[in-house]
Amino acid sequence: MSPTLELACELIARPSVTPDDHGCQELIGNRLAALGFAVEAMPFGEVTNLWARRGTEGPLLCLAGHTDVVPAGPLDLWDSDPFEPVIRDGMLYGRGAADMKGSVAAMVTALETFVRAHPDHRGSLAVLLTSDEEGPAINGTAKVIERLQQRGEQIDYALVGEPSSRERLGDAIKNGRRGSLSGFLTIHGKQGHVAYPHLANNPFHAAAAALAALCAEIWDHGNAYFPPTSFQIANLNMGTGAENVIPGQLDAQFNLRFSTELDPDTIKRRVRGILDQGDFDYELSWRLSGSPFLTPVGELVEAARTAIRDICDLETELSTSGGTSDGRFIAPTGAQVVELGPLNATIHQVDECVAVADLDALQRIYVRMMEQLLQ
Amino acid sequence: MSPTLELACELIARPSVTPDDHGCQELIGNRLAALGFAVEAMPFGEVTNLWARRGTEGPLLCLAGHTDVVPAGPLDLWDSDPFEPVIRDGMLYGRGAADMKGSVAAMVTALETFVRAHPDHRGSLAVLLTSDEEGPAINGTAKVIERLQQRGEQIDYALVGEPSSRERLGDAIKNGRRGSLSGFLTIHGKQGHVAYPHLANNPFHAAAAALAALCAEIWDHGNAYFPPTSFQIANLNMGTGAENVIPGQLDAQFNLRFSTELDPDTIKRRVRGILDQGDFDYELSWRLSGSPFLTPVGELVEAARTAIRDICDLETELSTSGGTSDGRFIAPTGAQVVELGPLNATIHQVDECVAVADLDALQRIYVRMMEQLLQ
Repeated sequence: MSPTLELACELIARPSVTPDDHGCQELIGNRLAALGFAVEAMPFGEVTNLWARRGTEGPLLCLAGHTDVVPAGPLDLWDSDPFEPVIRDGMLYGRGAADMKGSVAAMVTALETFVRAHPDHRGSLAVLLTSDEEGPAINGTAKVIERLQQRGEQIDYALVGEPSSRERLGDAIKNGRRGSLSGFLTIHGKQGHVAYPHLANNPFHAAAAALAALCAEIWDHGNAYFPPTSFQIANLNMGTGAENVIPGQLDAQFNLRFSTELDPDTIKRRVRGILDQGDFDYELSWRLSGSPFLTPVGELVEAARTAIRDICDLETELSTSGGTSDGRFIAPTGAQVVELGPLNATIHQVDECVAVADLDALQRIYVRMMEQLLQ
Repeated sequence: MSPTLELACELIARPSVTPDDHGCQELIGNRLAALGFAVEAMPFGEVTNLWARRGTEGPLLCLAGHTDVVPAGPLDLWDSDPFEPVIRDGMLYGRGAADMKGSVAAMVTALETFVRAHPDHRGSLAVLLTSDEEGPAINGTAKVIERLQQRGEQIDYALVGEPSSRERLGDAIKNGRRGSLSGFLTIHGKQGHVAYPHLANNPFHAAAAALAALCAEIWDHGNAYFPPTSFQIANLNMGTGAENVIPGQLDAQFNLRFSTELDPDTIKRRVRGILDQGDFDYELSWRLSGSPFLTPVGELVEAARTAIRDICDLETELSTSGGTSDGRFIAPTGAQVVELGPLNATIHQVDECVAVADLDALQRIYVRMMEQLLQ
């Protein structure tokens, strides 16, 4: 059993469902301290965070990740206990195996390998871990970054261990993410009896054309790095269940994943412009989960590409698709950010798993990147 | 206190919330038996029904109504106990005062007045009461009519005591009702993550244009007796509350109130025609609550018009608007059906009430109609 596999198993055995770190970071902190890292616990609220740094000079390469996992869901759907790591047919099973305790284990053992081989590496190495990436993500990476900014610590390269691979380890890395903007729409009508429609005002009838127009809108065409912006209504509710009542209100919640071609203010203006074409009253509020960010091809992307070519013998693809990650909190500081981790096919699902061979290859990729950036 | 007011109070004091008759029909049955009516209890399931007939010849004039009431709702919103009849400023307050224990009381005392004055009236008189008009209406009037049909008893004129008046007693009577057809629509999409819309299929996005077209459709223009057919979506639900999930299903329930210009099959075909223009899978089921019915101007309408002119000194208006009533079960037998009762302004509301003067005037209207039809 390789050191990476061994550590991954130790982490999976800790049921660290958000925001409970369940001792993962203490275990890792002790290993990093033994390597000469200055280890700081940075708890905020009920969230456990760790910041560990080795060296004081730039450039600073930060390996970032999370120790929390999403809930296991119904236990009887799992072939084995989600918090008891099991190896079957070359695969390591357990909640967090792919997202992202496997990556975190590979980061720690990669640091051990690299620092023992190059104790006098240039620049600095750091590890940033949180127990709240899968949750509200308020007291996690965002707060750690805020504190680092306050004391002037600048991350130059951030390597995030999110599972970026699709079918083969390393076939895709994320060098950016779309922005995410949610809208909360209430359309006001007037309640009444279905038998007397002239005395009521059905909010869906009033807004149907505008809602259809929002769904049909082409927001942009994306660009070289980003797919076209997408709009999706996730929740749409009207009516109390009574079959003979025209409801007085319709509630909708929608989300846009947007490219760097758009900004939140432009989107808000365009949504209002479409809604205002209808003859109805509405309220609309917004929540920006993250602005789009992009790390163009540069030292960090090249280091990842080269490492993947060396270890996996394939050309990786740059991608900005998929959901948000804590990279969104690091990118605005000016850091180059790349996400590189195992296959994402089973994340958040029952029987989550990662190939044992991929864990070891991922560890070697991380080492190879450190060699390029800090040797 | 007039006999009508007295009986209305006795009925209101019985909390006969659907389907509990709470002794109302026994009380009425005893009064009718004393007049020479043959009184039959016709219970079906937990529903209490009464059929009472005086005479064996035609024509048969049936006074129809219900002894059940809708629940009182929050008691603290009422100015006085809903099941304790109270007279304030000339108004009788209590649940059922207007819908329709007042009418039922007026029917009974009108029969007493008429029969005592004309013990040898021509034709027959009948009373049909149910304790399930406000509920599912399955074991009530529909079942009584079925039994009457089986034994060949034909109602020629049905006078239903539903509160038909708007601002003054007698200003409107219903000589028909629109049909009511409900549709239950499920649109199937494919669930997925909002960040990966190309892997999912949002059912609202797929169906938005078709739903908007349904709302904008002009179904007909009504006719001399009916307003235009109306279509209303009463319930529309999609999404589980999760903000980042594209839902796999949308559920909608809609209702059409339709005129005699349309029939259910035509409506179903047209709805499917509009839905089929979209590119999505759906399931659609239907429930017909009642076909439209109409009693054109004839003996019964004329008797009501004349009685209202004589007692209230106004020209009544014929109407087919509003919700369903048990008239829908009587009309298909070929009977002429008219609904004539007190003001409907407070029905199903807190502090339901009826004017004491209207109760007595209504009794005289009913007597006047009997005189025209059976004297």
